[in-house]
Amino acid sequence: MPLSVTILGSSSASPALNRNHSAQILNCNENLFLIDCGEGTQNRLRKYGVKIQRIKCIFISHLHGDHYLGLIGLLSTMHLLGRQTEINLYAPAELKEIIDLQFKVSDTTLRFKLSFFSINSKKTEIIYEDKNITVSTLILNHRIPCTGFLFKEKRKAKKINKIACMAHNIPLEFYNELKLGKDYKNTEGEIIKNNILTFDAPPSLGYAYCSDTAYLPSLAEQIKKIDLLYHEATFANEQEERAKTTFHSTAKQAAQIAKNAEVKKLIIGHFSNRYSNLQTLLAEAKEVFENTELANEGNVFLVD
Amino acid sequence: MPLSVTILGSSSASPALNRNHSAQILNCNENLFLIDCGEGTQNRLRKYGVKIQRIKCIFISHLHGDHYLGLIGLLSTMHLLGRQTEINLYAPAELKEIIDLQFKVSDTTLRFKLSFFSINSKKTEIIYEDKNITVSTLILNHRIPCTGFLFKEKRKAKKINKIACMAHNIPLEFYNELKLGKDYKNTEGEIIKNNILTFDAPPSLGYAYCSDTAYLPSLAEQIKKIDLLYHEATFANEQEERAKTTFHSTAKQAAQIAKNAEVKKLIIGHFSNRYSNLQTLLAEAKEVFENTELANEGNVFLVD
Repeated sequence: MPLSVTILGSSSASPALNRNHSAQILNCNENLFLIDCGEGTQNRLRKYGVKIQRIKCIFISHLHGDHYLGLIGLLSTMHLLGRQTEINLYAPAELKEIIDLQFKVSDTTLRFKLSFFSINSKKTEIIYEDKNITVSTLILNHRIPCTGFLFKEKRKAKKINKIACMAHNIPLEFYNELKLGKDYKNTEGEIIKNNILTFDAPPSLGYAYCSDTAYLPSLAEQIKKIDLLYHEATFANEQEERAKTTFHSTAKQAAQIAKNAEVKKLIIGHFSNRYSNLQTLLAEAKEVFENTELANEGNVFLVD
Repeated sequence: MPLSVTILGSSSASPALNRNHSAQILNCNENLFLIDCGEGTQNRLRKYGVKIQRIKCIFISHLHGDHYLGLIGLLSTMHLLGRQTEINLYAPAELKEIIDLQFKVSDTTLRFKLSFFSINSKKTEIIYEDKNITVSTLILNHRIPCTGFLFKEKRKAKKINKIACMAHNIPLEFYNELKLGKDYKNTEGEIIKNNILTFDAPPSLGYAYCSDTAYLPSLAEQIKKIDLLYHEATFANEQEERAKTTFHSTAKQAAQIAKNAEVKKLIIGHFSNRYSNLQTLLAEAKEVFENTELANEGNVFLVD
């Protein structure tokens, strides 16, 4: 199952020239998950050719404006374009109040069902699950309650070794059992081990989105060996103190988390608008964790 | 005093490719007035080189998202950039509740004073006045309470005819009286008429912003002979019925208002995103009122 992340914005609080506020699309086999929704997200979705009516879930990390101010506009546009398919929205509870108030004053009744799920910002929990994927929260350390999101593919079925199965006369109706890892007992009572009849399942991939947070070493344990990690990197080293007081991270700290968690690849984003050139941040991260890339708007990262 | 209008967006409810939501800057001798503030306005202000900290008043016509969703982001950016100068905000009362709630959840206390003035949507009134300009509301006919804004320069001082004044030995200390239109009585008791000693005052200019409204013929009387009129023109003729049911106007109806009001120039905007090419709307308006232009993003219209 292809899994990819499209960056729609990577600016922190004030947008920079050519950098917009946080938003990403996780494409999980053409099911689209929107992660954060800063101002103007609907325009960037259009710019990068994302089919907005395919978005089935929206995850909002916290209620600083740069992470959710594009939401009402996006929902309105979905409504105006005739959407009827339900959307699940996972966010801090107060967002429900804001949405209700804004739709009340505009006299809007959405044509589709908006199912709101309030996030517990104190305790990691599974907030979404379908046949392919689970989404859990990651508790971050920010100025206001803030969670990251861990997207993990479920354990996949093993692949049938057709030649071996034919050689052992395995009936077709037992193939589903094989995929789940069961051994086969033939008519003579002989056990044929599953690993002779199947190939290993493809690896279950994972993506962790760590939005605004102060340096939080304990995070590494929760995202251990994940395939792709997005971690905020608002500041360069020389602003380490400022990162601390504003509950943000430096690029180097993001890389330290990636290194400790032994992830495969790190994307850094949420850059302060003081940096017109991001090469310093990238270099500082790469010193600690080589496989780092910048979350440039429009970039698509495959999770593999 | 130069008076100009910069168009920052001209799309109706759903943004179109290359057309953003409603927002305009009225520049009144370098005092900046922001009129409506759709999503992404702060980016367009930056794009068109408007100094955001110079905005002193913001006027919001109504609480459909395409007219105000950029406001919180803009105020946040002003705050983050260190603004300390007060801002006056004129808007429907419910906007105060929305702003308070959004800043509460983001734990934000603005560094500057935000003075909120609730607009009466039932009755035309003067809502702002300084030494140069008055701003009055125009009651429009939309699905929810909605007002337009009429910006009028105050009556200006007459210009001194220096040669005539010297010929009549008018003392310098009387010049201010002359500017106000007073006659001069000399030491022999002779009256010298003001119009001999002065030139006419430059004309007092006016701009009317008529945001979302169904066709409203009575509007013409309130904006009679205004120099520049912006009037929404969401639809072409063939959608006249849809204009009616959605409380919007066609380009032709906007032009009819301009014609009846005998304005100097008409700008049409707030176009439905069904129109990728706006020439039909322009042509339909011009048939009724020749001096019509499209509110293209980035255009600057001098009021003269």
